[in-house]
Amino acid sequence: MQKRLLMTPGPTPIPDDVLLSMAQPILHHRTPEFKALFASCSEDLKPIFATNQPVLMLSASGTGAMEAAVSNFCRQEDTIITVSGGKFGQRWGLIGRAYGLNVVELEVEWGQAVRVDDVEKALVDHPNARGVYFQASETSTGVRHPVEAIAALCRERANTLCVVDGITAVGVEPMDMDEWGIDILVSGSQKAFMLPPGLAFIACSEKAWRLAEQSTLPRFYFDLLKERKSQSGGQTAWTSPVSLIVGLRKVLDRMNAMGMDGLMSHHDVLARGTRAGVQAMGLQLLANPPATSVTAVWAPEGMDAGAIIKGLGARHIKIAGGQDHLKGRIFRIGHLGWFSQADIIATLSALESTLAELGHEFSPGSAVAAAAAVFEGTD
Amino acid sequence: MQKRLLMTPGPTPIPDDVLLSMAQPILHHRTPEFKALFASCSEDLKPIFATNQPVLMLSASGTGAMEAAVSNFCRQEDTIITVSGGKFGQRWGLIGRAYGLNVVELEVEWGQAVRVDDVEKALVDHPNARGVYFQASETSTGVRHPVEAIAALCRERANTLCVVDGITAVGVEPMDMDEWGIDILVSGSQKAFMLPPGLAFIACSEKAWRLAEQSTLPRFYFDLLKERKSQSGGQTAWTSPVSLIVGLRKVLDRMNAMGMDGLMSHHDVLARGTRAGVQAMGLQLLANPPATSVTAVWAPEGMDAGAIIKGLGARHIKIAGGQDHLKGRIFRIGHLGWFSQADIIATLSALESTLAELGHEFSPGSAVAAAAAVFEGTD
Repeated sequence: MQKRLLMTPGPTPIPDDVLLSMAQPILHHRTPEFKALFASCSEDLKPIFATNQPVLMLSASGTGAMEAAVSNFCRQEDTIITVSGGKFGQRWGLIGRAYGLNVVELEVEWGQAVRVDDVEKALVDHPNARGVYFQASETSTGVRHPVEAIAALCRERANTLCVVDGITAVGVEPMDMDEWGIDILVSGSQKAFMLPPGLAFIACSEKAWRLAEQSTLPRFYFDLLKERKSQSGGQTAWTSPVSLIVGLRKVLDRMNAMGMDGLMSHHDVLARGTRAGVQAMGLQLLANPPATSVTAVWAPEGMDAGAIIKGLGARHIKIAGGQDHLKGRIFRIGHLGWFSQADIIATLSALESTLAELGHEFSPGSAVAAAAAVFEGTD
Repeated sequence: MQKRLLMTPGPTPIPDDVLLSMAQPILHHRTPEFKALFASCSEDLKPIFATNQPVLMLSASGTGAMEAAVSNFCRQEDTIITVSGGKFGQRWGLIGRAYGLNVVELEVEWGQAVRVDDVEKALVDHPNARGVYFQASETSTGVRHPVEAIAALCRERANTLCVVDGITAVGVEPMDMDEWGIDILVSGSQKAFMLPPGLAFIACSEKAWRLAEQSTLPRFYFDLLKERKSQSGGQTAWTSPVSLIVGLRKVLDRMNAMGMDGLMSHHDVLARGTRAGVQAMGLQLLANPPATSVTAVWAPEGMDAGAIIKGLGARHIKIAGGQDHLKGRIFRIGHLGWFSQADIIATLSALESTLAELGHEFSPGSAVAAAAAVFEGTD
């Protein structure tokens, strides 16, 4: 059994001290000890979401928090605008339709960012839209959508929320919730938070809380008004995923030690190094503009991306493929969370070996050298 | 820092090998390795739920699975019958009302089992009731409801489901889903499954799956038809709580080694020993009949149950109190999951010391001796 490198955009690797902290005997969730731990996590999540609002924790994967972002704020037959340019963008539409909402889906080519003008036009055409639902970073394509500009459009409209799936953006790139005017910001444990899956986060603006009071959609497990009340007392409304919250405390200590600027620049350097590496081999990025969380790359003309993923797998490095129509055409390298420059270098080296084997022409060592040049002088 | 004993009905203690298995480097949930692990867990859950139907796994606490048991099977304005004789029985009513259903609540004195005649009368009065929703073991009072008899009543009615919250019953006492005709059986990871909270289970009969096709309530994250399809391929629809499923594999190995009869008799002996111990001190049980998962006990006349709990806490043993109007009047000792006869003996000894300190009169050593007599010759 060889040592393996997990280079996917989630689940991402977990630091050993976090793994071991979660292997401690279980805490009871109704004890003062756990309440204090929970409250300290709540507090330390705020700067990471760049908000003064409570960041609620839910025992669910990120999709559960996405559903909560619909079911707690909309009314029967409301219209919502969604940005659909990837697997996760489509999900907003699926959730909206599951609740019988009128979903206005802005179709965007996979890998492209939504145009702010198109969002504005949709808002003009649908002045009663309850919200614009989109991804900060669309994990399936590695694109970054223009969060700040869309938030500014929603800010001008009293009853339209800016709802951001930040599952692969929070803790990775600037996501200034309060300053930009993001109304709902969602994230999950198995990404930048370096934890196993099963803990979701959601923060809501005052505007969002005001609209929540008017919502008429049914919900119970994901009742955010109930959670807000309960969590202000250091408890989740339903049984907490205790072990993940114990691990979260360790992760937040780590994030605090790096500081937000440190965390952002660390991720930025990894992403730039990865992009420089693949481009040095003559490969093209799928996404424009690329997000900081994951780099999606077109396989060379005529080459099956599956063969590339397999080649890295044979070298004990797991990367991700494309989804739906991009399957076999792109591969994705994750670099959010517990990753190092050494991980990126090793991945690019294995990519060089694999592509050479598959007959792609490039100068050997060029990818690694390009990334190393980006990394030079950074930490 | 002293070694502590957690004697609550959930979260329950976790075996060390299970804790350490979950501290291994994270698996990616879309790999053949994880799919094989998932599929083996699915298969081994079936005998524990005594069903040939798939046992679905959800990334949520047990309450999420309870909601799924309503939202996937009912239609707008359906009537459901619920048994409300404790905190968890009330929850069925809250969920039903959150979805706008007509909830017929059978009020039962806390600690008493529902009378089968009363359920039958409600079914006659409401022939279109979509289901009878109740607890096998009501954790807040430690009572056992008559599951088999209620299932038999539902069996005679083509469109009425027998929906059982088995969160503290599955893996603890006989719960013969297919044989008795239970239509929906729910459980959670942090009870007899000896895991941290965050993984819920739900199994559904053919009758339930047939009615699910007619359901009109909105749902997305807890869409069981989608989960059934996905999980038959070794994947959850949304990101799996990977680490809990890795731990589950270890737990199932342990349960398999004990066998279902061994598991049931182990729990039965612990429950009988606990009851014999508290009764030997002249204390009264709250529940009639008592469940096997948890023993709820009245504090002696005029004594605050909080003082008893505090006294055990000072001896590094955590037990639970009563909820709502039973707060301060009862205490609860959990014995489902990773508990031993030694744990019960130690708890009863601490209870003796505490009660002596608080002025209750009884023969010192009587509780421990009574439990030891029950344990004699058992394992």
